[in-house]
Amino acid sequence: MTVTMSPIATVRTSFTATAQIPKGLDARHDAEGTIEVDPVFAAGLQDIEGFSHLYILWLFHRTDGYDLIAHPPSDDRPHGVFATRSPRRPNPIGLTVVQLMRRDGTRLHVRGVDMLDGTPVLDVKPYLSSVPTADIKRGWLAEAEARRAR
Amino acid sequence: MTVTMSPIATVRTSFTATAQIPKGLDARHDAEGTIEVDPVFAAGLQDIEGFSHLYILWLFHRTDGYDLIAHPPSDDRPHGVFATRSPRRPNPIGLTVVQLMRRDGTRLHVRGVDMLDGTPVLDVKPYLSSVPTADIKRGWLAEAEARRAR
Repeated sequence: MTVTMSPIATVRTSFTATAQIPKGLDARHDAEGTIEVDPVFAAGLQDIEGFSHLYILWLFHRTDGYDLIAHPPSDDRPHGVFATRSPRRPNPIGLTVVQLMRRDGTRLHVRGVDMLDGTPVLDVKPYLSSVPTADIKRGWLAEAEARRAR
Repeated sequence: MTVTMSPIATVRTSFTATAQIPKGLDARHDAEGTIEVDPVFAAGLQDIEGFSHLYILWLFHRTDGYDLIAHPPSDDRPHGVFATRSPRRPNPIGLTVVQLMRRDGTRLHVRGVDMLDGTPVLDVKPYLSSVPTADIKRGWLAEAEARRAR
């Protein structure tokens, strides 16, 4: 079974190379950018401005192929790709939670982008779920943090 | 530009019809289910059991086509599809945050499923982001709740 998808939008950021994007445990993503939605989908944005945060589902469009074992920058140990945010995944979908600052027609001005300029977007959804922070276990990331702190 | 994807896993739940899945503002998703990952991707699950919550990206495989204006069950007013979780979206990707209870080989036993039995899964990612609950604005959902409460 296969499914074919086409982008609905393009991300505009100041990042033209992956090296410019903050990575790793201490990375803060407060860079601003714009989600430029294809005008044919304009009606689909109605009422989106009421949400403070959005999920952006996007394509890792510069990757080719995948690895089941990833070597994330935030650790010196390898981990399974599904336990990481590695771009080299079987289906190269990226997921970012951004803060919606304002909408200007089909342009969503957002904060918290970690995508390259020109990244294709597959979907935008309202961010609703909130898991209590105290309930979140962060696996190998927490362990790598602990090792670093020693 | 188009991209072709193939499922990496299948969701097993007790839901055989969409009518069985709790929907709407008051919906609680604590149903348990299993993510059965294709054994060819087994190595990609290494260390995933350290995470308490996962993002499951899946396909609305029973939908055909999309509507830019959605009529969600939680409101009597229409909204743009990107401001809803409607299945009838340009790229039919569903997103669910589940709690990982345990891993049994390539089977992930999870809580919080809202997918039909047999739903194809495109990707699994660790849930890391946490937006402070006080910072989340829920747009038309909050307004619909307020109208209901009156």
